[in-house]
Amino acid sequence: MCRPLCWTYASGVLAVLAARTDDTNPLSGLVVADRPEPDVPEGWRLVRVKAAALNHHDLWSLRGVGLRSDELPRILGMDAAGVDEDGNPVVVHAVIADPDAGRGDEVNDPRRSLLSERYDGTFAEHLVVPARNLLPKPDALDDVEAACLPTAWLTAYRMLLRSGARPGDTILVQGAGGGVSTAAIVLAGAMGFRVWVATRDAERGRRAANLGADAVFDRGERLPERVDAVLDSVGAATWGHSLRAVRPGGTVVVCGATSGDPSPVELNRIFYQQIRIVGVTMGSRDELAGLLAFCAARNIRPVIDRVLPLHQAIEGFAALEAGDVFGKIVFTIP
Amino acid sequence: MCRPLCWTYASGVLAVLAARTDDTNPLSGLVVADRPEPDVPEGWRLVRVKAAALNHHDLWSLRGVGLRSDELPRILGMDAAGVDEDGNPVVVHAVIADPDAGRGDEVNDPRRSLLSERYDGTFAEHLVVPARNLLPKPDALDDVEAACLPTAWLTAYRMLLRSGARPGDTILVQGAGGGVSTAAIVLAGAMGFRVWVATRDAERGRRAANLGADAVFDRGERLPERVDAVLDSVGAATWGHSLRAVRPGGTVVVCGATSGDPSPVELNRIFYQQIRIVGVTMGSRDELAGLLAFCAARNIRPVIDRVLPLHQAIEGFAALEAGDVFGKIVFTIP
Repeated sequence: MCRPLCWTYASGVLAVLAARTDDTNPLSGLVVADRPEPDVPEGWRLVRVKAAALNHHDLWSLRGVGLRSDELPRILGMDAAGVDEDGNPVVVHAVIADPDAGRGDEVNDPRRSLLSERYDGTFAEHLVVPARNLLPKPDALDDVEAACLPTAWLTAYRMLLRSGARPGDTILVQGAGGGVSTAAIVLAGAMGFRVWVATRDAERGRRAANLGADAVFDRGERLPERVDAVLDSVGAATWGHSLRAVRPGGTVVVCGATSGDPSPVELNRIFYQQIRIVGVTMGSRDELAGLLAFCAARNIRPVIDRVLPLHQAIEGFAALEAGDVFGKIVFTIP
Repeated sequence: MCRPLCWTYASGVLAVLAARTDDTNPLSGLVVADRPEPDVPEGWRLVRVKAAALNHHDLWSLRGVGLRSDELPRILGMDAAGVDEDGNPVVVHAVIADPDAGRGDEVNDPRRSLLSERYDGTFAEHLVVPARNLLPKPDALDDVEAACLPTAWLTAYRMLLRSGARPGDTILVQGAGGGVSTAAIVLAGAMGFRVWVATRDAERGRRAANLGADAVFDRGERLPERVDAVLDSVGAATWGHSLRAVRPGGTVVVCGATSGDPSPVELNRIFYQQIRIVGVTMGSRDELAGLLAFCAARNIRPVIDRVLPLHQAIEGFAALEAGDVFGKIVFTIP
């Protein structure tokens, strides 16, 4: 395992940074260091972070995807729960965008940015964000649970909203361990969908069944019938199966490609079967508010793999890079 | 040019057939022949065909796509206008499907078939179809014009309906000569969209401008701004440009891949820019009724490349295969 470098500032805040990017050895650019107390711009708020969850996006940033070298060092992290300057418990929405620039959907603002891209992220004792990026934390969720929601869980929630499926329809979730797929399994069941899961890992399949999956299949296995929608965060390894698994007129919702970019497209299948491919990244502030209310109302708990103190963040990064997770990894700040 | 074989039946009807399929030399399987008078199943109607338009689908059938060898010989053709047994002028809807089996959209019936696949097609003096596949022909359109509508024009119409775009939005049409792209240019303008066209052929670009395109670009050229939706029937040659041309949250509607299957998918772009890919094939009977009414109400005329008597069909097939068309090729039966 890599050992993080350590930088020290006088009277700083502890933070986990991308100091440089490296496509082949992303963890080599990871640094735990003290950073200066952040300035609070007009209209922004200071948050004392209590819990922050890890995402694949943080690994991609360390590989140099979406993070330019002139932005370095940059504090990583998109998900956080904490308290604002007035002591109110808050959850942080990670999309910095103009709500009027995305035609009713701020995530489509062409200049939108995610925390840890143009602005410092959540892996720090103190965080600054625009005031509208703070939402009240429901009492039903503790800080660790609430910190899981703004990225992977919000993405899964939006994927389900955009799947075109109706309650009672069957949803296939590709993969069973990651943050998005575990969220999708739990949320899809709570929304009234029949939930099928395809995974190459039998143990994760068993754990998916424990989360409420109605049936579990091997990756690529022929299904007993075609499904109404597929949620796919895997990419190359599952694309062909997803296109074959969905009924004519059904939807494949994609939010990532952890196994790389598929090839070929199979456009003939897409148009002849009238399949919709819907790309989803994150969700709007309103959708995050909806997700928080949904989790509180239905007693939905995020699936958590492990909780680590922030200064041990590298252990979480290494586990995520190794694919050795089931649910979210959360860092806490005492 | 190939010379068609000729078969003769006593007291038959003239028809254009796929006698065999050949992926590399599709026209070698094309036959003009007399066929026996068709039986009329219960609930079906006999149509005397007056005009029938040619589609890429007919060339794909000759290549063996969607047409099994045990279905041969098969009369080709999907589009027709003519008169029914009572002398009523009719337009033929080419999708043979159970309207209740497609969840409100018959084109999604998993057992749907297009004319010339499991059932004989429209390139014949007489045609039989289920009664519900006949729609009244509007007086405003003559037989040749009406025969252009049920496949390429219906597909373009449905693509625009599913583009997610609103009047005033900008639509990019990839290609400027084919039946779908010429239809899309004319229909999009009449629906109130701003219409941009990308083509590699300057002469076709000029003709697209004459059809009402607001701007014409070279294929792959960087556009002055991102568009709200792209209509793409080209495939491999335009996929990357289509994904780059569309705004975040916009839609790429695909109905074909005349230049082959694209690779790679560029899934990262699709999910990060939240692009929707929507596959479209044909349209429902109700949509064809809507298209006929729209054309009649707004005096919209299909774009016609040439009109040939049915027995000279091979000349039309050869032109389509060579890509030497601007608009529809229509066969007539005196």
